[in-house]
Amino acid sequence: MLEPPFAARGRDRNHARAIFEVVTLSETLHDSIRAVEWTEAGLKLLDQRALPLRHVHVLLENAAEVADAIRDMVVRGAPAIGVTAAYGVVLAARARYSRSPSTWRQDIEEDFQCLAASRPTAVILFWAVERMRGHLTGITGEPVAPLLTEARKIHEEDVAANRRMGALGAACIQERGMVLTHCNTGSLATGGYGTALGVIRSAYSAGKIERVYADETRPWLQGARLTAWELVQDEIPVTLIADAAAAYLMKQGGVTWVIVGSDRIAANGDVANKIGTNSLAVAARYHGVKFMVVAPTSTVDMNIKSGAEIHIENHTPDEVLSLGGQRIAATGAVTKKPTNNKTPTELVDVIVMEKGVVHRPNAEKMAAMMRGNS
Amino acid sequence: MLEPPFAARGRDRNHARAIFEVVTLSETLHDSIRAVEWTEAGLKLLDQRALPLRHVHVLLENAAEVADAIRDMVVRGAPAIGVTAAYGVVLAARARYSRSPSTWRQDIEEDFQCLAASRPTAVILFWAVERMRGHLTGITGEPVAPLLTEARKIHEEDVAANRRMGALGAACIQERGMVLTHCNTGSLATGGYGTALGVIRSAYSAGKIERVYADETRPWLQGARLTAWELVQDEIPVTLIADAAAAYLMKQGGVTWVIVGSDRIAANGDVANKIGTNSLAVAARYHGVKFMVVAPTSTVDMNIKSGAEIHIENHTPDEVLSLGGQRIAATGAVTKKPTNNKTPTELVDVIVMEKGVVHRPNAEKMAAMMRGNS
Repeated sequence: MLEPPFAARGRDRNHARAIFEVVTLSETLHDSIRAVEWTEAGLKLLDQRALPLRHVHVLLENAAEVADAIRDMVVRGAPAIGVTAAYGVVLAARARYSRSPSTWRQDIEEDFQCLAASRPTAVILFWAVERMRGHLTGITGEPVAPLLTEARKIHEEDVAANRRMGALGAACIQERGMVLTHCNTGSLATGGYGTALGVIRSAYSAGKIERVYADETRPWLQGARLTAWELVQDEIPVTLIADAAAAYLMKQGGVTWVIVGSDRIAANGDVANKIGTNSLAVAARYHGVKFMVVAPTSTVDMNIKSGAEIHIENHTPDEVLSLGGQRIAATGAVTKKPTNNKTPTELVDVIVMEKGVVHRPNAEKMAAMMRGNS
Repeated sequence: MLEPPFAARGRDRNHARAIFEVVTLSETLHDSIRAVEWTEAGLKLLDQRALPLRHVHVLLENAAEVADAIRDMVVRGAPAIGVTAAYGVVLAARARYSRSPSTWRQDIEEDFQCLAASRPTAVILFWAVERMRGHLTGITGEPVAPLLTEARKIHEEDVAANRRMGALGAACIQERGMVLTHCNTGSLATGGYGTALGVIRSAYSAGKIERVYADETRPWLQGARLTAWELVQDEIPVTLIADAAAAYLMKQGGVTWVIVGSDRIAANGDVANKIGTNSLAVAARYHGVKFMVVAPTSTVDMNIKSGAEIHIENHTPDEVLSLGGQRIAATGAVTKKPTNNKTPTELVDVIVMEKGVVHRPNAEKMAAMMRGNS
């Protein structure tokens, strides 16, 4: 839903003007990249493993290929994975229906399993597959068109939510300054536009951001490989820094906001996100820098009281011991690679969701927002 | 100078026993590595650029080779550079004297310039070269033996200071636990034993450390490449982590001390050190972890009132944009690579110097210590 002045104008003489303004605005939104695109030939994914060195796409024609692409990190970022899986269901239905129009509804179950198993930790993957499955019952005859409509809807809703968060988050930024972000939360991680990076796109378009500092985000280097690339493509000035340099930049002054995404938000506003986020939040508070978390409402789990209940995974350690296939550490050294960590709500200045904004979050305010009373 | 029980025993029946105890102690100190070694053939440096993949030495036979080795980072770490330069003067004198016994004192000036220019930011380099130069005047005849004696003295004093700091720092650690360190401050960075890593060696030998967490220390990866290697060699259990994971570890509990070195300490106890140190100090204070800085007294500059007067360099950005020669960031992305940063004295729990220990440092306590009244 758009806010005034763009909403509720009706079909009057101002309509063309309003549309024109929207188009002009989106053109200035520095938004040119899509990680996931449906084409007549199949599902086109930008291969994120090859970025930034090579800019190549893969074309997927069936559900097994989609599952492989998710498993192999051709696509990453929870919302982008959800959108990809939804289109995967369309490809599955096309294949199953053409093979057996009478049994495709039973046959496609195998594809649902296959897609759901491709990234067992991504809750949004199950959600997207279940939503697509829910639309099977109403279908008579050829299923591709109605399922494609639903998949496109999932995709468009994600972009719309991101634009909405972009507008809400940008409105929180009072003064023009520099911002710092972590990991990749942009068009590459979502259906398009991005969550934290969506706020950065909106705020930059509104003249509120002078420059973006991007943490390189070891060990996976999403900041170096993806965020810097994405911002360069969209002509937003970006300076890449080592993760350890973030506190120094804050101390120097100039950085006014840290803007990050989230994997999971607890009922009290504790935030789980990529490893390094907590460190940024602590440094931001110490140095008087504001801390913004941007995530869709679906990220909030009201059944989780606090961050203490969020499980943190420890992945295989290869990424810390080597880089780009090259060993960087001594044989015999072990490593620990937690993939994400938890930031206590007390360090968060604002949580931006498509549903609204919670300033200085706590359990009460989060509950009010989720009930829709905020 | 050794403290009792090892000092002032005299040549009595206990002497052999005392020596034996010293040897046994040093054997348990997990101290097997030397980055810089004088040999009859010349100056032997462990090539730190090749670590940890290859363990190779280079043999230097003249001052120009020594200057190149310092410039090319074959050796790094201020104390190790100082020791290397001192031996470089010995090599210079040997060459100049053999070429012209009558004019070598004038001729060697060129080598002093060459050595001093090899790392213009390393204050210790000038100090070492000047100290060696100061010994020229007393020399009659062949200069190698007396200069080698002085260079060895510089080397041994550094190791002795490190052992002293090791003992003092280890004494500050009350309970057995895990410690976190940053960059490389070990045998590789010094004449031997190390500063912060010297404290870790001593405390581990004393049973006070269960495990060391080493930050990988982007962008140069001194932690991954050097510290992990050095601790593995010396059989001290080490876990390598991404810099951004440090705050998470502190939050989890178990890490009781952060132990780091310093490039420069201001009169008020503000500490300049490798980029990322300030971030660790902020996170440590927030999570109730103690923060120890270990550095020789020569690091303290009483002419610098506070960290605000310490200049921070920004190096060429190649290390952030690429890794091991492999490009990791988008063309068009710029980067900022401050090499070090400043940690305010209020975040430092203890500064350990060979002269003594300053708890909760401030200008008054630092002045008292430097005057020798502490």
